[in-house]
Amino acid sequence: MLSTTMSTYRVLATSRPAGSHAAITMAALARARRPAVGVVVPASVAHAVSTRRTMATTVTKPKGRLVIIGSGWAGYKLLRQIDTNQFDVFCVSPRNYFVFTPLLAGSSVGTLEFRAIMEPVRQFNKPMQFLQAHCTNIDFDKRQITCTTNLEDSHDTLTLDYDTLVIAPGASTNTFNVPGVREHALFLKDISDARKIRARVIECFEHASQPHVTHDEIDRLLHFQTVGGGPTGVEFSAELHDFITEDLARLYPQLMPRVRMTLYDVAPRILGAFDAKLAEYATKRFVRSGVQIRTGTQVRNVEKDKIVLNDGEEVPYGLLVWATGITQTELVRGLRGRVAPDPRGAHRIVTDRRLRVLDPQGEPMENVYALGDCATISDYDLPATAQVANQKALYLGKQLNKTDEKAIVPFAYRHLGSMAYVGGWRAVVDMPNDIKPSGYSAWIFWRSSYLSMSVSWRNKCLIPLYWFAAYVFGRDVSRIN
Amino acid sequence: MLSTTMSTYRVLATSRPAGSHAAITMAALARARRPAVGVVVPASVAHAVSTRRTMATTVTKPKGRLVIIGSGWAGYKLLRQIDTNQFDVFCVSPRNYFVFTPLLAGSSVGTLEFRAIMEPVRQFNKPMQFLQAHCTNIDFDKRQITCTTNLEDSHDTLTLDYDTLVIAPGASTNTFNVPGVREHALFLKDISDARKIRARVIECFEHASQPHVTHDEIDRLLHFQTVGGGPTGVEFSAELHDFITEDLARLYPQLMPRVRMTLYDVAPRILGAFDAKLAEYATKRFVRSGVQIRTGTQVRNVEKDKIVLNDGEEVPYGLLVWATGITQTELVRGLRGRVAPDPRGAHRIVTDRRLRVLDPQGEPMENVYALGDCATISDYDLPATAQVANQKALYLGKQLNKTDEKAIVPFAYRHLGSMAYVGGWRAVVDMPNDIKPSGYSAWIFWRSSYLSMSVSWRNKCLIPLYWFAAYVFGRDVSRIN
Repeated sequence: MLSTTMSTYRVLATSRPAGSHAAITMAALARARRPAVGVVVPASVAHAVSTRRTMATTVTKPKGRLVIIGSGWAGYKLLRQIDTNQFDVFCVSPRNYFVFTPLLAGSSVGTLEFRAIMEPVRQFNKPMQFLQAHCTNIDFDKRQITCTTNLEDSHDTLTLDYDTLVIAPGASTNTFNVPGVREHALFLKDISDARKIRARVIECFEHASQPHVTHDEIDRLLHFQTVGGGPTGVEFSAELHDFITEDLARLYPQLMPRVRMTLYDVAPRILGAFDAKLAEYATKRFVRSGVQIRTGTQVRNVEKDKIVLNDGEEVPYGLLVWATGITQTELVRGLRGRVAPDPRGAHRIVTDRRLRVLDPQGEPMENVYALGDCATISDYDLPATAQVANQKALYLGKQLNKTDEKAIVPFAYRHLGSMAYVGGWRAVVDMPNDIKPSGYSAWIFWRSSYLSMSVSWRNKCLIPLYWFAAYVFGRDVSRIN
Repeated sequence: MLSTTMSTYRVLATSRPAGSHAAITMAALARARRPAVGVVVPASVAHAVSTRRTMATTVTKPKGRLVIIGSGWAGYKLLRQIDTNQFDVFCVSPRNYFVFTPLLAGSSVGTLEFRAIMEPVRQFNKPMQFLQAHCTNIDFDKRQITCTTNLEDSHDTLTLDYDTLVIAPGASTNTFNVPGVREHALFLKDISDARKIRARVIECFEHASQPHVTHDEIDRLLHFQTVGGGPTGVEFSAELHDFITEDLARLYPQLMPRVRMTLYDVAPRILGAFDAKLAEYATKRFVRSGVQIRTGTQVRNVEKDKIVLNDGEEVPYGLLVWATGITQTELVRGLRGRVAPDPRGAHRIVTDRRLRVLDPQGEPMENVYALGDCATISDYDLPATAQVANQKALYLGKQLNKTDEKAIVPFAYRHLGSMAYVGGWRAVVDMPNDIKPSGYSAWIFWRSSYLSMSVSWRNKCLIPLYWFAAYVFGRDVSRIN
């Protein structure tokens, strides 16, 4: 049952036996009865329409309604895994697509087109419902979530009942409360971020090439800075360096001697989670290609055109990308007191090994699961990576699909290694065994792995095609307003 | 010489012998002398850098500075044609790319990626300067234009001297002073428009599929309306119909019976400039596929969610695209009184057959040319199409490159025909002879012609590649915030 709490067309839940959802069903029937005045649909599609309508009017699925909050690695991969014959699936996410995040840095400079790393959440071969909305609250007692629709011209509040709930909204970028970051820095979490970065880089070059701009202003505009020396910051710096030297250098040759790039990290070295030799390799490559690495450096303050470091040094920037790890979303922070506290103080949702959310007493809740960057297992801490989220999603999908509860096994993580692109067709690969390749062969491995991991056949074809196009014809250098 | 009129670093023009531009040259030298602290550039690019720097310090070119206002069909095609050994070329345009407009409608629904119809204005193999700015005024006596830079965080005013000026800023969409159009309708002139349309279409479907939306609201959201039955409006309606029936129908099957599309025109038929039989073919195709054609209908008023027709009928819409012909830009309107009046009252700049702008006395000005949608020839009126702009640009480029002024010939237009896509792999082609193909073969002709007309080799390769990808994998259905 669905009820809107902000509008007059309120549909109140009167009783809620598991698995029934009369309100939707009646509406679907009512719609189906209306005369078809619409656009003429080809026969092949018309067939699909009638099939789907039948499915929509099915009143119950054996396991009732499964609500998945989020469409990232955890939510989307689970969605693909889940058996829609058993569950009536409802996905709630502010965006109607999944982003293949490992290739987001590359797409931010045009090595790939955005569409090659996006997958639509709606599956044309899978009956499911999708609600483009932020989940703002969860009522575990009523088994109900509250959402605010995320549409350009509508921000209605809805409530949605669940029989089974999966919490996977991901996390936000952590600004570590540095003032000015939210206002002035760009992030690298979503396609819209990548698009902003692409426009901004070209804007800096266009601005710097205008004849009236002062020397100081040119130096500011062409200083590209990244805060955070983890894989995201490193890969972004590498991709940006490629973009500048391979593509922009041809169009703005007179500006090239003025371009500077700096990568900051608080830690004593970049790629802290990687093998030390690999981190050293990456550092050397960056330094050799002119990217300054400033480790052990903290940013105190971000202003419109400059950052202020902890020792008071002011560094003007043209582009500032902030990639320093994650913090919990409003939704997850709001659950404090109603779920078990995070023993490691990161405000994550704590689950047991079956990914069931633990209540304040530390007991697993019935039919409420959490995974992805928002969650941790009480006695089995794992890093907040796409790899962990992906494995948890595949695991949970399998368990939820099981009809015999006795067959459910606890989650076990299998680390497959970490990789980072470091620019100029070179990468570092940190395998769980003693093999630690770096350089060109590692880059081949990096590209092949991500290609094989990309989700749909469409993108498995499009990604190499776009890589090839960028290699042959260069990246796109146009700035769209 | 360049002078900024809004800033402290003013560089005043003291004397202006044709062809000299000391201010830029000195700045270029000063920059060249600074130590290179920048990003390390590969040898191949470094070579290009040094080559370019030599060219930048050349003080004079035999024919002095050519300033081109605009980077559309007229400005960009001229730019490619012009001999940069004779001219010191300066292009001023608010966008740093050219748009292949005939394929813009297709890219607005994802049949093509945007980059395949864009060409960067900056040419890596051609010495030229580009200023991302709006031209706001022209002083014919001082031979100087005034510009406002079009950057996200800078809107400085600059003046720029010219020896030869080419005015080709294009035109704006004509709203015919219908209230509310600028505020609520979307246009189809630039990539940013196409991007807005794409996001809006998907937004309408996402919104309509939310469970709490009323029947009336669904009907409104899924009514896609286009005003203007010329080639732009027709092709957009055709592409949108393809997108909805081929791609969105798979993801939102339950909404398909509710989708409606309407195409309005004031004239008694659509495609007024085409052969009557072809227009009839297009009309029949649209009607058969469920697109309503409302000719002889005028829009009186546009409100946020509905349009009001001349007879008072109110029609709610989810998306309104306005494609009703052109009107002159502020720049061109501002020239009134300083150039010859347009005999046909459309406020265009009037030129002679050599495309030289006529002064108020009807005499051709020296070294000032106008072409594209902003211009007309006094005794030789031609439609404001890409075809005319393209031919004028190629003509003017050739004439300007000539060293012997006696060799200059008047412009002659050769009409090659008109084409329009009408959906479902069908098109109409109106040839200047009696051959008027329509249907599938005309569509093959339509695609091949535009492919052969597309400018760069890059896009000649990318366009069929993207067409193929859209055919095999479908168009992109994700909505980026």
